[in-house]
Amino acid sequence: MSDITKDIIPVVIGIDIGGTNTKFGFVDKEGNCLEEGSMPTKAEQEIKQFLPRLYQSIDDLLKTISIPVEIRGIGIGVPNGNYYTGTVEDAANINWGKMVPLAYLVQEHYKLPTVLTNDANAAAIGEMLFGVAQGMKDFIIITLGTGLGSGLVANGQLIYGHDGFAGELGHLIVDPNGRFHGNSNQGVLEAYVSATGIKRTAFEMMAKMIEPSPLRDVSFNQLDASMITDAALKGDAIAIACFEYTGRLLGMKLADAVAHLSPEAIVLFGGLTKAGKYLLEPTKKYMEAYLFPIYRNKVKLLISGLEGKNAAVLGASALIWSELEKKKEITVQ
Amino acid sequence: MSDITKDIIPVVIGIDIGGTNTKFGFVDKEGNCLEEGSMPTKAEQEIKQFLPRLYQSIDDLLKTISIPVEIRGIGIGVPNGNYYTGTVEDAANINWGKMVPLAYLVQEHYKLPTVLTNDANAAAIGEMLFGVAQGMKDFIIITLGTGLGSGLVANGQLIYGHDGFAGELGHLIVDPNGRFHGNSNQGVLEAYVSATGIKRTAFEMMAKMIEPSPLRDVSFNQLDASMITDAALKGDAIAIACFEYTGRLLGMKLADAVAHLSPEAIVLFGGLTKAGKYLLEPTKKYMEAYLFPIYRNKVKLLISGLEGKNAAVLGASALIWSELEKKKEITVQ
Repeated sequence: MSDITKDIIPVVIGIDIGGTNTKFGFVDKEGNCLEEGSMPTKAEQEIKQFLPRLYQSIDDLLKTISIPVEIRGIGIGVPNGNYYTGTVEDAANINWGKMVPLAYLVQEHYKLPTVLTNDANAAAIGEMLFGVAQGMKDFIIITLGTGLGSGLVANGQLIYGHDGFAGELGHLIVDPNGRFHGNSNQGVLEAYVSATGIKRTAFEMMAKMIEPSPLRDVSFNQLDASMITDAALKGDAIAIACFEYTGRLLGMKLADAVAHLSPEAIVLFGGLTKAGKYLLEPTKKYMEAYLFPIYRNKVKLLISGLEGKNAAVLGASALIWSELEKKKEITVQ
Repeated sequence: MSDITKDIIPVVIGIDIGGTNTKFGFVDKEGNCLEEGSMPTKAEQEIKQFLPRLYQSIDDLLKTISIPVEIRGIGIGVPNGNYYTGTVEDAANINWGKMVPLAYLVQEHYKLPTVLTNDANAAAIGEMLFGVAQGMKDFIIITLGTGLGSGLVANGQLIYGHDGFAGELGHLIVDPNGRFHGNSNQGVLEAYVSATGIKRTAFEMMAKMIEPSPLRDVSFNQLDASMITDAALKGDAIAIACFEYTGRLLGMKLADAVAHLSPEAIVLFGGLTKAGKYLLEPTKKYMEAYLFPIYRNKVKLLISGLEGKNAAVLGASALIWSELEKKKEITVQ
């Protein structure tokens, strides 16, 4: 199928649903976001109240686009989104209950192909189509936000696993007797390596070390990861020790991930990467030290190519673009 | 291409090269091994001496087959075999040097399609075509021999990784300050979970525990894993504690593997599985305990379906059969 006139631009709608905000945009095949918007998720609302607000916001945004577009499909990134079933299962921090057939509902409304997956998987496809992983067939993305998410790509395909929930590296076991962590096991990776994890590390370091630091004037409830990043960038010894510790644990578990998948690259994404070398150098150093020798000096450690752009919306758009591409292949054959 | 007469049976040659013995057989598409043989690898020999002996042995075996066969291709399982390049790189315990283009050499000799991979990957394909993983698209095989090997399958494809060396779960880090281990890092999984690993565990348990045991009459150099298995099956407390410890560490790292791949099943293969429930029960118990809750009670823990048969030869045969199948698909389209 070719476009009737060259002036109509084919686009998809990319939607990223988070616990706080829902972002969306119209994205063309080259990853240009023609127009984007956002609305509060209101996580306490049921899906019946959320969806009409979403449709209205998207329709309003569409009206602001002055050039003619043809919408081809819809991609959604959402916590606990299951690619296979199109459902959202017990999404953390969103009050939608045990099982919502979100892809079906959106597809019925817009009468357009709709797919969904979790936010980290969407980010992986975003990097593959529009970011630093273009042309790669084997790579891993690690998203460092409130928690630690991941998307794994092997043989050019996202690994969804048997049930659609593969790639939860935030829940790898670092220390079975380690930190407690909400709805997961004791001592899992994201209790250490994430915005909330490094804050807990800062309190350990303040207890252990004797150096003065502006962090010592901040309470646990007031401290956030960006303060630790800022302090590290100013040379603060406690903050730098926090990143060293974070990088050691991340590096150790990335070495394990390499022993599984032997990727071409590992892409880091999210707020903690703003610490630059203070995160990257220890991560690289310890990953290399813990790698089985045949893997050493082969795996690139990269910062996301979508950082600063609306990466989550681009990821969700990439998901549906790659799905439409697959269908085209099947039609052509 | 169809067979000229129905009486000619299409077969492949499956070859499994180990540090001690090299096994080979003629295997049909249903996984029946028509005839099999073996010869000493003589690991101290160079490849130039090994190959003529191998060709001679295979040719001799072919003469013993009384029914007409047509050989379609050759599959090889070999330590450090690289699927992508067809080379063997620094094979542990075999004196072939840094890089041998084994697939090319064998293909040139027989003028038949030839592919190779490492023994655990071949075992994975064997389980998928002929064993307990038939019909599965996402599973992991763990081979418990002198070391711990693994083959990972996702989306119905073996994961070779960027360099062909993915799936080395024996080299996951259990304890960075743990047991020393030859050419790998300190505290890697196979230093604990393998025939040699459980022997080391037995000596720790004899030091720690006070129960009498026939194992206390055996020196380190004389003890082997089968003695520990036999003792466990007779109810020996020390031996049972060894399997409990082995199962705990294996279960913990399998939980990590599930967080990567979310497989339908994990298949265990090799000598240690003869301990039956003494290995399986603690492995299952600890895997479930360390799993992120969304994965619990979903992953089957199975014993290989090829155990007792010549699994390695079947695996190498399955590798080339699946390769010939791929070529057929391309030709058909």
